[in-house]
Amino acid sequence: MKICVINPNTTSAMTAVISAAARSVARPDAEIVAVTSPMGPASIESHYDDALAVPGILRCIDGHPGMDGYLVACFGDPGLEAAREVADAPVLGIAEAAMHLAAPLGRGFSIVSTLSRTVGHAHDLVQRYGFRRSCLGIHACEVPVLELESNPATSDILVTSCRDALLADRSDAIVLGCAGMADLAAHISSEIGAPVVDGVAAGIGMLSAMAAMHLRTGTASGEFAAPPAKPYTGALARFGRPMTEAGVRRATG
Amino acid sequence: MKICVINPNTTSAMTAVISAAARSVARPDAEIVAVTSPMGPASIESHYDDALAVPGILRCIDGHPGMDGYLVACFGDPGLEAAREVADAPVLGIAEAAMHLAAPLGRGFSIVSTLSRTVGHAHDLVQRYGFRRSCLGIHACEVPVLELESNPATSDILVTSCRDALLADRSDAIVLGCAGMADLAAHISSEIGAPVVDGVAAGIGMLSAMAAMHLRTGTASGEFAAPPAKPYTGALARFGRPMTEAGVRRATG
Amino acid sequence: MKICVINPNTTSAMTAVISAAARSVARPDAEIVAVTSPMGPASIESHYDDALAVPGILRCIDGHPGMDGYLVACFGDPGLEAAREVADAPVLGIAEAAMHLAAPLGRGFSIVSTLSRTVGHAHDLVQRYGFRRSCLGIHACEVPVLELESNPATSDILVTSCRDALLADRSDAIVLGCAGMADLAAHISSEIGAPVVDGVAAGIGMLSAMAAMHLRTGTASGEFAAPPAKPYTGALARFGRPMTEAGVRRATG
Amino acid sequence: MKICVINPNTTSAMTAVISAAARSVARPDAEIVAVTSPMGPASIESHYDDALAVPGILRCIDGHPGMDGYLVACFGDPGLEAAREVADAPVLGIAEAAMHLAAPLGRGFSIVSTLSRTVGHAHDLVQRYGFRRSCLGIHACEVPVLELESNPATSDILVTSCRDALLADRSDAIVLGCAGMADLAAHISSEIGAPVVDGVAAGIGMLSAMAAMHLRTGTASGEFAAPPAKPYTGALARFGRPMTEAGVRRATG
Amino acid sequence: MKICVINPNTTSAMTAVISAAARSVARPDAEIVAVTSPMGPASIESHYDDALAVPGILRCIDGHPGMDGYLVACFGDPGLEAAREVADAPVLGIAEAAMHLAAPLGRGFSIVSTLSRTVGHAHDLVQRYGFRRSCLGIHACEVPVLELESNPATSDILVTSCRDALLADRSDAIVLGCAGMADLAAHISSEIGAPVVDGVAAGIGMLSAMAAMHLRTGTASGEFAAPPAKPYTGALARFGRPMTEAGVRRATG
Amino acid sequence: MKICVINPNTTSAMTAVISAAARSVARPDAEIVAVTSPMGPASIESHYDDALAVPGILRCIDGHPGMDGYLVACFGDPGLEAAREVADAPVLGIAEAAMHLAAPLGRGFSIVSTLSRTVGHAHDLVQRYGFRRSCLGIHACEVPVLELESNPATSDILVTSCRDALLADRSDAIVLGCAGMADLAAHISSEIGAPVVDGVAAGIGMLSAMAAMHLRTGTASGEFAAPPAKPYTGALARFGRPMTEAGVRRATG
Repeated sequence: MKICVINPNTTSAMTAVISAAARSVARPDAEIVAVTSPMGPASIESHYDDALAVPGILRCIDGHPGMDGYLVACFGDPGLEAAREVADAPVLGIAEAAMHLAAPLGRGFSIVSTLSRTVGHAHDLVQRYGFRRSCLGIHACEVPVLELESNPATSDILVTSCRDALLADRSDAIVLGCAGMADLAAHISSEIGAPVVDGVAAGIGMLSAMAAMHLRTGTASGEFAAPPAKPYTGALARFGRPMTEAGVRRATG
Repeated sequence: MKICVINPNTTSAMTAVISAAARSVARPDAEIVAVTSPMGPASIESHYDDALAVPGILRCIDGHPGMDGYLVACFGDPGLEAAREVADAPVLGIAEAAMHLAAPLGRGFSIVSTLSRTVGHAHDLVQRYGFRRSCLGIHACEVPVLELESNPATSDILVTSCRDALLADRSDAIVLGCAGMADLAAHISSEIGAPVVDGVAAGIGMLSAMAAMHLRTGTASGEFAAPPAKPYTGALARFGRPMTEAGVRRATG
Repeated sequence: MKICVINPNTTSAMTAVISAAARSVARPDAEIVAVTSPMGPASIESHYDDALAVPGILRCIDGHPGMDGYLVACFGDPGLEAAREVADAPVLGIAEAAMHLAAPLGRGFSIVSTLSRTVGHAHDLVQRYGFRRSCLGIHACEVPVLELESNPATSDILVTSCRDALLADRSDAIVLGCAGMADLAAHISSEIGAPVVDGVAAGIGMLSAMAAMHLRTGTASGEFAAPPAKPYTGALARFGRPMTEAGVRRATG
Repeated sequence: MKICVINPNTTSAMTAVISAAARSVARPDAEIVAVTSPMGPASIESHYDDALAVPGILRCIDGHPGMDGYLVACFGDPGLEAAREVADAPVLGIAEAAMHLAAPLGRGFSIVSTLSRTVGHAHDLVQRYGFRRSCLGIHACEVPVLELESNPATSDILVTSCRDALLADRSDAIVLGCAGMADLAAHISSEIGAPVVDGVAAGIGMLSAMAAMHLRTGTASGEFAAPPAKPYTGALARFGRPMTEAGVRRATG
Repeated sequence: MKICVINPNTTSAMTAVISAAARSVARPDAEIVAVTSPMGPASIESHYDDALAVPGILRCIDGHPGMDGYLVACFGDPGLEAAREVADAPVLGIAEAAMHLAAPLGRGFSIVSTLSRTVGHAHDLVQRYGFRRSCLGIHACEVPVLELESNPATSDILVTSCRDALLADRSDAIVLGCAGMADLAAHISSEIGAPVVDGVAAGIGMLSAMAAMHLRTGTASGEFAAPPAKPYTGALARFGRPMTEAGVRRATG
Repeated sequence: MKICVINPNTTSAMTAVISAAARSVARPDAEIVAVTSPMGPASIESHYDDALAVPGILRCIDGHPGMDGYLVACFGDPGLEAAREVADAPVLGIAEAAMHLAAPLGRGFSIVSTLSRTVGHAHDLVQRYGFRRSCLGIHACEVPVLELESNPATSDILVTSCRDALLADRSDAIVLGCAGMADLAAHISSEIGAPVVDGVAAGIGMLSAMAAMHLRTGTASGEFAAPPAKPYTGALARFGRPMTEAGVRRATG
């Protein structure tokens, strides 16, 4: 099976972290294809960045057909629904995947995210995915995304934030709120003595399960059928999908 | 007061319909500035279209500073949160505005939308905005957006769909689920004997109220403060915001 | 358009505050008719006061036909549903109106009310109107209604309460929880640097929008049709509605 | 123990039905005091009637001190919160009581009410009391309150309505939606082979339990403490409570 | 009427406390039959204990036919649904009963339980029964079940825990979270000045009401009909129910 | 990695079906250990069966230490919380696992179960796990568990039930509501053209993901720590856990 992991920001150093995390948990028979978005923000830390990361994600899917699953490796889960309309295989976001795996690990989990301005968006995802009972708190460690790697204090800050969250929320598990934290999950877990769920690994696990079961996004209700073909103009003209063949799945660009 | 109405698709005929609806209910002292998105889809009928309409909306806001309010005239309410981070005035979507005005008109309302594939997204907006108690049903009339104007049967189809929805849902009001239906609200209302809420008019009314009260998007929690400056690359490079002045609200492009 | 603002307590000094707030935001073509309840409590600070303010509200509507909207200017929103059955135009309460305008201004709002014994009732309104996601906290400043005007410290107390609420709840806006605070909204807003929503102004804005759109309470489900005629006896005998003409909207008194 | 059953409409024939239902289930050591409202509507079938029944209910409580419990025998549960502020003993409504007893009897219950215009209000009570999971449907039999006794077909209509509700909702029990149906519960139950809960009997049962446990309305949060004393004017002047003794529980009239 | 109170643990000293609490509030015409589980844990303080208490509860019901109601006297409400399938009369748990009686006593109640590891389970019961609005907090006093009687400090610890809970939650009533606290309700109530609801007494009151109304568990939906007969093997072989007569209610053992 | 799949009924033919389904999706490096409950019901079709299956499940865990995950293969998810307290590795139920994998496959899923009497319990699991938004309907095919294999019409009945559910609910995926249907998932999927999720395969996938990430049930809140040691008596005496070593995880039997 082949699983495509998309880094929806344009920072390739972060793609390397994500790719390593994905490979470390993959089935022996799984191939991980890691790609970096070709356009948009260098990191995703606002609704503005989140929205403008979506065109790049859609390009990545268009450029990598024939996969058994796509993982969008940003905790804001940008563009999942649009991606599901155009991908030939299941699409997961890392927030979604992490929460699905964390929920059965105890009474509930705490999310530890980067900047506090992203807490509201994480809260919306919790509501949307149905984890209001399981998510007992969302916390920010206040390290910006691109400093996670460069700041030597990141590991200590995260251990402290996670331990504090566990106590404050009376939770049983931690969900890491950024793809850039993927390489720290094992260390934090051993420090705090609690399960720590990284969404990149969780996403690979869930997509592998779906692939083994030959599951694809369902189109029976029509919502996730291929989008109607129509003209696109301006800087996004190449996102237009051919009008001659209704139902064709890939754009022309 | 000046209110900017953004048609987030690239079809200028639809901008004309929206603009007329906005002007028909505006305060005598309000100026309506109607703009058409400079890029993206010709109509919005899928999650794919919805996501790819957002860059154009953000361009429109950037190109029209100094307003007292911005109305995004597509019932999917695309890009509202990103828009709120960069706009100097309140931002509303027409779905949101229509539901806020319809809720107090009775026990509940029915939404009558275009294609059935958009029903799921409308359902998500209902949940998100808190109208689960008020929204008693969502129905599709199965007329595509760009046929609303051209199809001579549109008016009859909508009257029938709205009347059926009222009965099926035991509702007291109708919310029209597309900006392209704005010119039909009065006719439908007189035919079915029930209040019919068009989101364009509702949005102008709510933004006028906000403007008269000098209300702006709040930034105290940080979530809707100006997005952090950072590099943008590729086809979206011009969306990058200058890195030298933190907090500057407009992009450079 | 003509909008009737009802002060549901019997204190005419408070009617003056409310009336001024209403006029300050009204459209140039709107006439504001401010009326004081002819019976019941001098201020509304308990469920008992709230319930006994309703007959006076219904009298005010009965005595002022021909309006384009009615605003009930008490944050407990007393008697809205009964009023909707008998009024010829839409009816709003100020709590309802304030929350509808405040919700789109950010992640969420805090309510700052008068006495702590009213917090539970405000909580119920939040739930009923669907603002559980948007309302992040309800706080009491512990100034009784009729002291809001007379107490020279009111303004400072409110500024402090609102600033504290914003921080404690991580909210982006304030909703003022009493009609008697209407004249303080602008001052508080400039002090705390966040949008402050007064329900009287919000109600005028929403009713003006409804009037411009020719919206009325819907009666299709029957719930808000005119109440069945029947005998009334005792001290409330004059509230009986004539039995000879089913559907007549006004009482005889 | 003494339990006061209040008929909040002014029709004494209905008080007799209610009183008999109450006595048929009372403990041997319980005294039932049945009273008829001295003012307001002859029956309660609208929000207007519901609101204007409250002053009479409060008069009944004021006129019958020294009880161990008060039951408000109208399915709209009018005025419960105001009543709790002024009564020296617990106060229940029959809708509330019926739902509390019906919930543990199976997967869920159906409510069968009088006129369809009251269905919305019953729905609100279900939400408010927390029975959204248990209440599987609300149905109207379309017999007006005062015809329940006089119409010879009432019994057959109700049996049919209840049987249909059970099937349509896949429910396990019926809650009767009007105090005037109290005398029919046993007959309907034997006809449809399912438990049928009359709120009058349920209320007597719950208040007896509370009395045996010496439970009273709690005042720790302040919400249900005696209402602040203040002037009342006009037709409701006698509802004013003396200003000289804070905390005195009964009005002066 | 005869009501069977089941102590689902095997500690007969606790049965005595429960039995006394039940008798102290019973109707003069009610007979209380108190039984101790014949198998399983000596006290119930974990999900493991809770699950393994159920066979004993089912044995108790099987061994005591002809009752008008069964009360399961453990705050975890173990086995209620299985019990309802096999009992000839209504079945209540003490958590359920206590919450139904406490909800109408004010704005909301606090639960004070034994060990903190049980708080999560109590939270689930609150959600399941629909008391999310009424239950304002759940607290542990950290006294193990079997020390409630023997520890001389229990009473003081509970008074302090209950008083603290009332303040922290701004609640109006206390629900005691263990059958072993039944004898302390009156003392705690007089110390803290707020209603304290013991589930044993509450359950007797609700079952007495149901018995007086001749209510039984409904079987119309089929969920609570007698379980299908089938072979049982191993240590639980005697729980098998005879296969020859479908619908027979009692097991063979 | 080693994953233990527990058939909680005593029918070994069903264990074979479950075991094959598990092996067909397992990672190449995973060992599947399939075990049959040593005691209790031959199939699980009521709350009574469900409750009495739990002791056998706990025996299976106790008898198979050293695993990396345990899957309870009955759609009622019996005994999960008790199992989590005593197992050294994560524990999943098949209902839970199926819903976690099905939710991201579209707008929502339908559950197709065996007998209609189990629909209520499935509904409770949906609520508990947070899938109220995703689960659009629950349907019974009315084939008893032990006839799934023997009845030659099972496959056709299920195809029809699943196709009908998809249309009636406007859903995008099917969740199979019984472990005994595991071998039919692929056939049904190809017949109806929609993803069909079998919980046994889903559970193996999720547990494999957890094992690869070294995740275990969290014990930080204390709820899922080893149960307190205490005496057990009667037929369940062997479930008692030794009192000398607090925290020992396995029972003595």
